[in-house]
Amino acid sequence: MVPGMSDATKSRPDGRAPSDLRTVTIETGFQRNPEGSVLYRAGGTTVLVSVSVAEGVPAWMQSGRGGWLTAEYAMHPRANARRQRRDGRSAAGVDGRSAEIQRLIGRSLRAAVRLDQIGQRTITVDCDVLDGDGGTRTAAVTAGFVGVALALDALRKRALLGRGVLRVPVGGVSVGYAGGRALLDVCYQEDRDAQMDLNIVATRAGAIIEVQGTAEASPIPRQHFDEMLALGLGAMPAIDALQRGALERAGVALDELCG
Amino acid sequence: MVPGMSDATKSRPDGRAPSDLRTVTIETGFQRNPEGSVLYRAGGTTVLVSVSVAEGVPAWMQSGRGGWLTAEYAMHPRANARRQRRDGRSAAGVDGRSAEIQRLIGRSLRAAVRLDQIGQRTITVDCDVLDGDGGTRTAAVTAGFVGVALALDALRKRALLGRGVLRVPVGGVSVGYAGGRALLDVCYQEDRDAQMDLNIVATRAGAIIEVQGTAEASPIPRQHFDEMLALGLGAMPAIDALQRGALERAGVALDELCG
Amino acid sequence: MVPGMSDATKSRPDGRAPSDLRTVTIETGFQRNPEGSVLYRAGGTTVLVSVSVAEGVPAWMQSGRGGWLTAEYAMHPRANARRQRRDGRSAAGVDGRSAEIQRLIGRSLRAAVRLDQIGQRTITVDCDVLDGDGGTRTAAVTAGFVGVALALDALRKRALLGRGVLRVPVGGVSVGYAGGRALLDVCYQEDRDAQMDLNIVATRAGAIIEVQGTAEASPIPRQHFDEMLALGLGAMPAIDALQRGALERAGVALDELCG
Amino acid sequence: MVPGMSDATKSRPDGRAPSDLRTVTIETGFQRNPEGSVLYRAGGTTVLVSVSVAEGVPAWMQSGRGGWLTAEYAMHPRANARRQRRDGRSAAGVDGRSAEIQRLIGRSLRAAVRLDQIGQRTITVDCDVLDGDGGTRTAAVTAGFVGVALALDALRKRALLGRGVLRVPVGGVSVGYAGGRALLDVCYQEDRDAQMDLNIVATRAGAIIEVQGTAEASPIPRQHFDEMLALGLGAMPAIDALQRGALERAGVALDELCG
Amino acid sequence: MVPGMSDATKSRPDGRAPSDLRTVTIETGFQRNPEGSVLYRAGGTTVLVSVSVAEGVPAWMQSGRGGWLTAEYAMHPRANARRQRRDGRSAAGVDGRSAEIQRLIGRSLRAAVRLDQIGQRTITVDCDVLDGDGGTRTAAVTAGFVGVALALDALRKRALLGRGVLRVPVGGVSVGYAGGRALLDVCYQEDRDAQMDLNIVATRAGAIIEVQGTAEASPIPRQHFDEMLALGLGAMPAIDALQRGALERAGVALDELCG
Amino acid sequence: MVPGMSDATKSRPDGRAPSDLRTVTIETGFQRNPEGSVLYRAGGTTVLVSVSVAEGVPAWMQSGRGGWLTAEYAMHPRANARRQRRDGRSAAGVDGRSAEIQRLIGRSLRAAVRLDQIGQRTITVDCDVLDGDGGTRTAAVTAGFVGVALALDALRKRALLGRGVLRVPVGGVSVGYAGGRALLDVCYQEDRDAQMDLNIVATRAGAIIEVQGTAEASPIPRQHFDEMLALGLGAMPAIDALQRGALERAGVALDELCG
Repeated sequence: MVPGMSDATKSRPDGRAPSDLRTVTIETGFQRNPEGSVLYRAGGTTVLVSVSVAEGVPAWMQSGRGGWLTAEYAMHPRANARRQRRDGRSAAGVDGRSAEIQRLIGRSLRAAVRLDQIGQRTITVDCDVLDGDGGTRTAAVTAGFVGVALALDALRKRALLGRGVLRVPVGGVSVGYAGGRALLDVCYQEDRDAQMDLNIVATRAGAIIEVQGTAEASPIPRQHFDEMLALGLGAMPAIDALQRGALERAGVALDELCG
Repeated sequence: MVPGMSDATKSRPDGRAPSDLRTVTIETGFQRNPEGSVLYRAGGTTVLVSVSVAEGVPAWMQSGRGGWLTAEYAMHPRANARRQRRDGRSAAGVDGRSAEIQRLIGRSLRAAVRLDQIGQRTITVDCDVLDGDGGTRTAAVTAGFVGVALALDALRKRALLGRGVLRVPVGGVSVGYAGGRALLDVCYQEDRDAQMDLNIVATRAGAIIEVQGTAEASPIPRQHFDEMLALGLGAMPAIDALQRGALERAGVALDELCG
Repeated sequence: MVPGMSDATKSRPDGRAPSDLRTVTIETGFQRNPEGSVLYRAGGTTVLVSVSVAEGVPAWMQSGRGGWLTAEYAMHPRANARRQRRDGRSAAGVDGRSAEIQRLIGRSLRAAVRLDQIGQRTITVDCDVLDGDGGTRTAAVTAGFVGVALALDALRKRALLGRGVLRVPVGGVSVGYAGGRALLDVCYQEDRDAQMDLNIVATRAGAIIEVQGTAEASPIPRQHFDEMLALGLGAMPAIDALQRGALERAGVALDELCG
Repeated sequence: MVPGMSDATKSRPDGRAPSDLRTVTIETGFQRNPEGSVLYRAGGTTVLVSVSVAEGVPAWMQSGRGGWLTAEYAMHPRANARRQRRDGRSAAGVDGRSAEIQRLIGRSLRAAVRLDQIGQRTITVDCDVLDGDGGTRTAAVTAGFVGVALALDALRKRALLGRGVLRVPVGGVSVGYAGGRALLDVCYQEDRDAQMDLNIVATRAGAIIEVQGTAEASPIPRQHFDEMLALGLGAMPAIDALQRGALERAGVALDELCG
Repeated sequence: MVPGMSDATKSRPDGRAPSDLRTVTIETGFQRNPEGSVLYRAGGTTVLVSVSVAEGVPAWMQSGRGGWLTAEYAMHPRANARRQRRDGRSAAGVDGRSAEIQRLIGRSLRAAVRLDQIGQRTITVDCDVLDGDGGTRTAAVTAGFVGVALALDALRKRALLGRGVLRVPVGGVSVGYAGGRALLDVCYQEDRDAQMDLNIVATRAGAIIEVQGTAEASPIPRQHFDEMLALGLGAMPAIDALQRGALERAGVALDELCG
Repeated sequence: MVPGMSDATKSRPDGRAPSDLRTVTIETGFQRNPEGSVLYRAGGTTVLVSVSVAEGVPAWMQSGRGGWLTAEYAMHPRANARRQRRDGRSAAGVDGRSAEIQRLIGRSLRAAVRLDQIGQRTITVDCDVLDGDGGTRTAAVTAGFVGVALALDALRKRALLGRGVLRVPVGGVSVGYAGGRALLDVCYQEDRDAQMDLNIVATRAGAIIEVQGTAEASPIPRQHFDEMLALGLGAMPAIDALQRGALERAGVALDELCG
């Protein structure tokens, strides 16, 4: 082992190497009612995803033939160290951060689905963060894809949908930059200290669906950005494997959905 | 087996006898952050309880010396067969049913705590129904008591509280009346068909904290009401035992808290 | 006179015996526009009830054949010693207490009406507390029934409804427990000091429609609860007589409506 | 009787002459709690006025020495022929018409009070229209002045205020223009058909506090406007007499308050 | 020069004579999308008017044949010396002052349009105050009329409307009373110190559409009111000329619209 | 000229080359009151930026020493082809898209300011889109920086701030990918048809502050993303020059602020 490598590794709070994902567990069928239900844990972050499929589409697209997918994201009031007001119950409506994140989740998962193949139906992906420890929005995308696949598979098994309703599997991961290097799948403590926080949604093959990065204090050089992007895209096969594993255990043949 | 008994038993959808509780599981420590965290399942009903303790009390009681306890209750948008709007995100604010229920939970759990012994602190009990199949409000009380005990025990272990901060353990159960008899712990299907739905919050010894019953179609004779009340109060020792078991497994000595 | 009785009587703030109702006046036709209008005073409590009948039913029941009844309850901003914010004008929407109470009123009055006999109409019962001195929710039920009977009678006189649109007359009363005995129809001062506050909605014959009781500090034995329930149900004939008297003076033949 | 006069008189729906006020009754002390309570009826219009005096002033004027007066105006949901949504419970907050009117009432009554003489107190004038039949905003001003005088008199009798806290009595009246002449105190039916609706707030002597007039369909000549203004100002002594009568019966010496 | 005249003139903050309007500029076509767009500046007041014409009318008038016109008025958060909360983003919904003003604008401009001649269309007049220095509501009426004429002309040029869709041109002006005389078109500083603030909407010929005046401290004699009204009505030809000039430069033939 | 180049150029709706910015005009001092006021036009997009500086900071940072910067973004109701509801006046509060965008603007401009050097002050950047034709969020960043510099310069000229309150000038630009190539500064029509829409906030030197890109239909290869990023970063010197030009004309010495 290279000593420098070893030093660098030690500096992550949980002892991971810079390119290590946190431990992920994906439990399907956690709730009884949703067409797709996923309890997703990555390190200290827990997201409950519930996917509902309803007949009908929003008014603005009723003249078309296809369907729609939308997401809602909410922090459980005690997802963090201090209790926060229940999102949406304050006078100001949905919290701005939640609004921003649920839009990203919706865009990301719409890219995964062939909306013109699902009939005039609306897929709603509810993402509730039960424990927050960094990376909740990309966790919601990764888990959300599993939930959407479960839901579409359920409809397919009821002969309501044909093959090929998924365009491509998608997953998400966050990358930070701190201490002169890119760090994969940063936890809250790392995120807080990072110079940039980059959220990536992509395919197994590394094609990009969404990129959203913010330099926290001072601008960062493009070279660092490229390093982060490469690290994140490089993790997509591992994320894809986690998703496929959970879907297989749940009896979902992803290839038929993507067909 | 008595034929009538057998017939009656068969008529409950899940084969229970009229005085049977549903199968209950109580998982503590489900979330990482709350002082008290409980995932409570009773048959097809699942409630996630999160208890937070914060310094300070609401403005209206700041001149006093004691603390306060309040509850929030929300249905997960997909707790039922159809997705509902996320509670609190509609224009009309908190749903009326949620408002009614969270007030009952708060009153019930305040009766369990010696608020004058907890200092100027506010205990918030978040009750999120993840799956709804009847009896969610009394499930929230039963699980809420476990969560409050966990939270007060955690403060006590940090030497922030003394003995005797709990007045008395409390639990809740619902009773229905259908087919000429009282039925314990009704599920949604039974509740829908019952002539009366009675929610009871009480102590192990059967002392009453809250009673709330509604005749669904026509008024019912007092004799039936008394039968229901007796059935519910009779189940309190069993509920108490479930709570104590979960707390023991979590290392909480209930007697010291109640001391 | 028995000395103990006499002592007990003296201890009520207004000199009533434990089983005495407060003085009640029921003025019908107070407002010009509603199908049923009632100004109801019981001691220091004043509730203005306005019953409106409109064609049509809520969307969720449009496929059925019958009608619907709903209630709104609001405190006048100066119903109490200090002015409060006008209910519904705060950021948080309808006050939680109002939401809880208007649901109880709605359930209670729906039990009184044969909704399947009133056509596709919606009855709205507006209950505005102009002066609050305890017992406002049961006052709203008692007055609300008078208002509903006035409204249905008005429709019946216009030949829009047949006989038998009322199932059964209902009334409400509150009972407290203090000083070792049950007290009927408690005023605010008694309510504040009571160990339990019990709200009862029932028929003249004592059949139960709604029971809602809360132990204020410590749990109370079932025996005390039973004593309270008996006291409340025992008052129903007197309440029924007050309602019938007001309706008779207004020219309403209750028996034809109940027929 | 002059035939033309007679014809003109006959054309008002209730047989009044063009310069007749409707019958007014002013009942003080209708509610128990407010410092000033007035039930005001003018023909088919009924307004309940409740005046509250609280210690303290809004944040924006806390550096000053005087007090503040504000008004709230709301239609009872069944003040009109059809039930309307309860004001303030809709998603859009306070109805625009109510907002406009309560601002006029507040301005008008602030002109009546020497705010710098009432200490750091806030007077809130709640105006609830129980029956609407035209002229509700000026009825609220006329009744509101009575309520404010009652409230200030109550404080004066508790020795909390000195002489001269009122600047000048004020009252309001509406005037319509229809059929080629000005009509005093128009009811709803006349208002609906009028070419202009003019609301006037003024003193007994005819000095102007607020004028607000709207031509309903086409612009009207200044000469007609002047005729309306003269008719309204000419009614102020009669309105003042009604207010004084009610205050005298309630034991209020207006001259000491105005001193 | 008469000395008194000269003194009086000097006392206006910007050196105007009592009967002088502020300098007005009217820029049409400021925004690209609206059917009518006007940037209106009068002294230190700037109002951006945007007129939109949409197919369809509000639900409550769908059974009729004509159209509707409505206005929205909002202060830019930095229209004044201190930044204010963005109107409508506070918990309380639209600010009361804005609600009052936009109702006045709507009424005034509806008087200018033959709503029964524009088909089932809704005209929305958005008035955004970018700089506030007094007289914003009457500026919005004056500019709003120009915008409505631009919009109707645009529809007429697309052959969607015939001649005569305007009833009459309307404009607005504010008048103050200070220092013993009426002052035309008061700026904020004058308005703040005035005894009365009078807003007038009228035609070129001085026929009245809306009058709204408020005595700020003490009631004012009718004679002063009349003086103010005369001064305001006397300015209408000058305001009309400014409107016509702007419309002519934009190629709009007002006479055809009014035909 | 290479024919392929020429064809490509022709295909942009306004005839620009792929790496051309739209024509930009920056008018400072458009509003009278803000510390910094900018009317920014880029092609068919117009953004009004108003920068306000107020004493004090939000409650959550009051224990610190520095200041804060926040942004609000709103579409004018007629910024687009159809009128939309005024943002914030709907029941649901601030539109989700606006919430997302104003968070991006705030983060971007906070990176430009040394918040620890501005004292306990809050800078609010109001961005109102008057005409929308693509690129509004990056236009708001570019114009917002000019406004912030104007505001800080104004404070500096009043000797309230020292040198070096700006960390670095920042600007924004959007890039699309369509027809097999990256296109700079896309207008609405191009944006709608693009495979990816990328928003970049960066310094003159190309250091990155914020990157936010969304693939509209199918994922895009990293190579295309890199091409887009390079095109956007390459435009930063031109954007910086436009900003500097406007600030120079307004008499602001950027170097002293950046000191």
